[in-house]
Amino acid sequence: MDYDFTTVINRRHTDSVKWNVKDSELPMSIADMDFKTAPEIVLAMREKLELGAFGYEEAGADYFNAVSHWYQLEHGADADPDWMIFATGVVPAISSIVRRVSHIGDNVLVQEPVYNIFYNSIENNGRHVLSSDLIYSNGKYEINWQDLEEKLANPLTTLMIFCNPHNPTGIVWKKNEVKRIASLCQENHVILLSDEIHGDLVRNNVKYTPAFSIAKPLRSNVISLVSPSKTFNVAALHAATVIIPDNNLRDIVNRGLNSDELAEPNLLAIPATIAAYTEGFNWLHELLAVIDNNFAYAEKKITKQLKDIKIVSGPATYLMWLDVSEISQNSQELADYIRRETGLIVSPGSIYRGNGKNFLRLNLASPISMVKDGINRLITGIKKYSKK
Amino acid sequence: MDYDFTTVINRRHTDSVKWNVKDSELPMSIADMDFKTAPEIVLAMREKLELGAFGYEEAGADYFNAVSHWYQLEHGADADPDWMIFATGVVPAISSIVRRVSHIGDNVLVQEPVYNIFYNSIENNGRHVLSSDLIYSNGKYEINWQDLEEKLANPLTTLMIFCNPHNPTGIVWKKNEVKRIASLCQENHVILLSDEIHGDLVRNNVKYTPAFSIAKPLRSNVISLVSPSKTFNVAALHAATVIIPDNNLRDIVNRGLNSDELAEPNLLAIPATIAAYTEGFNWLHELLAVIDNNFAYAEKKITKQLKDIKIVSGPATYLMWLDVSEISQNSQELADYIRRETGLIVSPGSIYRGNGKNFLRLNLASPISMVKDGINRLITGIKKYSKK
Ligand SMILES: Cc1ncc(COP(=O)(O)O)c(C=O)c1O
Ligand SMILES: Cc1ncc(COP(=O)(O)O)c(C=O)c1O
Repeated sequence: MDYDFTTVINRRHTDSVKWNVKDSELPMSIADMDFKTAPEIVLAMREKLELGAFGYEEAGADYFNAVSHWYQLEHGADADPDWMIFATGVVPAISSIVRRVSHIGDNVLVQEPVYNIFYNSIENNGRHVLSSDLIYSNGKYEINWQDLEEKLANPLTTLMIFCNPHNPTGIVWKKNEVKRIASLCQENHVILLSDEIHGDLVRNNVKYTPAFSIAKPLRSNVISLVSPSKTFNVAALHAATVIIPDNNLRDIVNRGLNSDELAEPNLLAIPATIAAYTEGFNWLHELLAVIDNNFAYAEKKITKQLKDIKIVSGPATYLMWLDVSEISQNSQELADYIRRETGLIVSPGSIYRGNGKNFLRLNLASPISMVKDGINRLITGIKKYSKK
Repeated sequence: MDYDFTTVINRRHTDSVKWNVKDSELPMSIADMDFKTAPEIVLAMREKLELGAFGYEEAGADYFNAVSHWYQLEHGADADPDWMIFATGVVPAISSIVRRVSHIGDNVLVQEPVYNIFYNSIENNGRHVLSSDLIYSNGKYEINWQDLEEKLANPLTTLMIFCNPHNPTGIVWKKNEVKRIASLCQENHVILLSDEIHGDLVRNNVKYTPAFSIAKPLRSNVISLVSPSKTFNVAALHAATVIIPDNNLRDIVNRGLNSDELAEPNLLAIPATIAAYTEGFNWLHELLAVIDNNFAYAEKKITKQLKDIKIVSGPATYLMWLDVSEISQNSQELADYIRRETGLIVSPGSIYRGNGKNFLRLNLASPISMVKDGINRLITGIKKYSKK
């Protein structure tokens, strides 16, 4: 290991949302990591501070080339820099695109259980959530193709938000699945918005399929959203890239991002993203090994000590998805109980809707000492709950 | 002088929008400064980088107290921290508020000539610009009160965007003017949105009146927008504060900022703003003296060499407003000519509408050597143009 993934960083009593908790509590809910970002990124930030004058900026060729370079080397995917637009975040871009490519009252299709903030982006803007729930059986999720097709064919469905890879389940969609979804969207004149923020965080040498990378003409109604935010623990960098192969669709989205004031980079966004995408390879691959190790540790402990709980996570994300249906069908109540009894904060699956009420989501992107503490608290809390 | 306002910073071939020009050109248009920001701010940024883990953040009491402290000490104005909301910028907040407190097709009142981006915020969101033009006579601007009152009384006028102090004219509105406008707005059920981004940049010991500081009940339909952005040359910090004394109005605006994804601070926004507002006093007062000096220099040269040009600027902003009507009523053509002939880039007043077509706007927030170069180019260009 060249990088440090063991030191515990103290973010208590800072402006961190995750760590705005009691001193006795341990947050493993909100999806940011407890590792320092790659030192190459901090160095680039530090160098930028030398400039001293921090006026208006715009992303230039070096930024877009860096994104392209990363997708080529890390994912074997061709992303033309001309397809790209800078945006201040993935969620901001989603909200803006919902407003720009769908109308008030339309249906926006999602696959529940899914990242809860999608619901805000849809509902706060007066659109309806229409879910084609993932089918869950034998501890595995699958797409209900017939249902998906029917719902995409509904004339009020104009946009699909696809979580690729999928949070909270960790599923990495196969290339033929991505293509089939793009094809169904195209047949039904539905824009496919693919949130790929977890695309870099895939373990076990599995690779995800960026939606922009599928062949013409299928990619013509596709929007991919990517960001170093999750990958490098820089959520508060406020930098993301919107990748849209089709010229007309890109112009429409671009107009929306500008009107919504989400198109201008802050003073760190450009240099830090360039550093991440040109110098971040080694750090990321060490991180993935660390997360793998954390998953292995958690799996072993949970399997041994909590026989009633099933681990359902796919190879993506640092978030573990735990089927707790044997002990509770009310994950909010269970999560509240665990917090009260042990101080461990986990996300109740219910916020992701679908069958999430039978699940807990656990963030494992922390130094192993913290993971051990968290798993111990989880075991204590669940055992105590089961005995009630 | 404790701070350095003379070193020329090289931002050519960086991501700066202002300096994205030919090597032979000198930009004095876009409103950011060519001085390094206060070293206290850079230090706070540098310290923040030490943390290394840059997850989601929210502004807490220390942030809002710092804003309050600044308005108390620098402006003698009481700003209750509870009145405040963080936003990613003044223009983003304006656009969001336009969307939230007015309806499509409504009139938004402005006072032309005024900061051009107001028009984008209004028109991109499907509202109409309704101007109560400032009256210009004898080299001075004044409010046309009767016209203003009539236009506020129009039932389709639901919002007024007030530039306080006023860009591009540099006018600092007097307290009784601010109160009279607030009162007219209130009588006519119009929300008063006061953009106070230039409020700190007032020379000659003149003080501006923050709209939030006027007494109850007048301030109940008032929104003030403030930011260290112009004051400390940190436009790309993406930090601003929305100050709304009224609880209900604040809740409405808050909801809009959240839905529009403009409510979350990036990793530098909080520490840099706190540093600016608690340690920036001395730097700002030295800056104001430097700008004063630059204005004196420019005035002397222009008055002597360009008899046909009138300087109309009030004490606010670092932007000089030049009446060029004696030599051109087409400031766009004149600005293009000056750029072509001398490489000096100034803003044609026409973009600010109203009587702006008879004006040029010149950014004087640069080291004196650059100001001298700019004024020389201006004189050369205008003399040559006059002889055509
Ligand atoms: C699927 C997904 N999209 C987007 C985000 C957040 O994106 P951003 O912070 O860039 O807005 C998250 C964070 O957890 C996520 O899981
Ligand atoms: C009156 C006024 N408001 C707002 C802005 C820009 O604000 P921000 O960069 O915070 O969006 C400017 C910049 O010139 C301005 O002159």
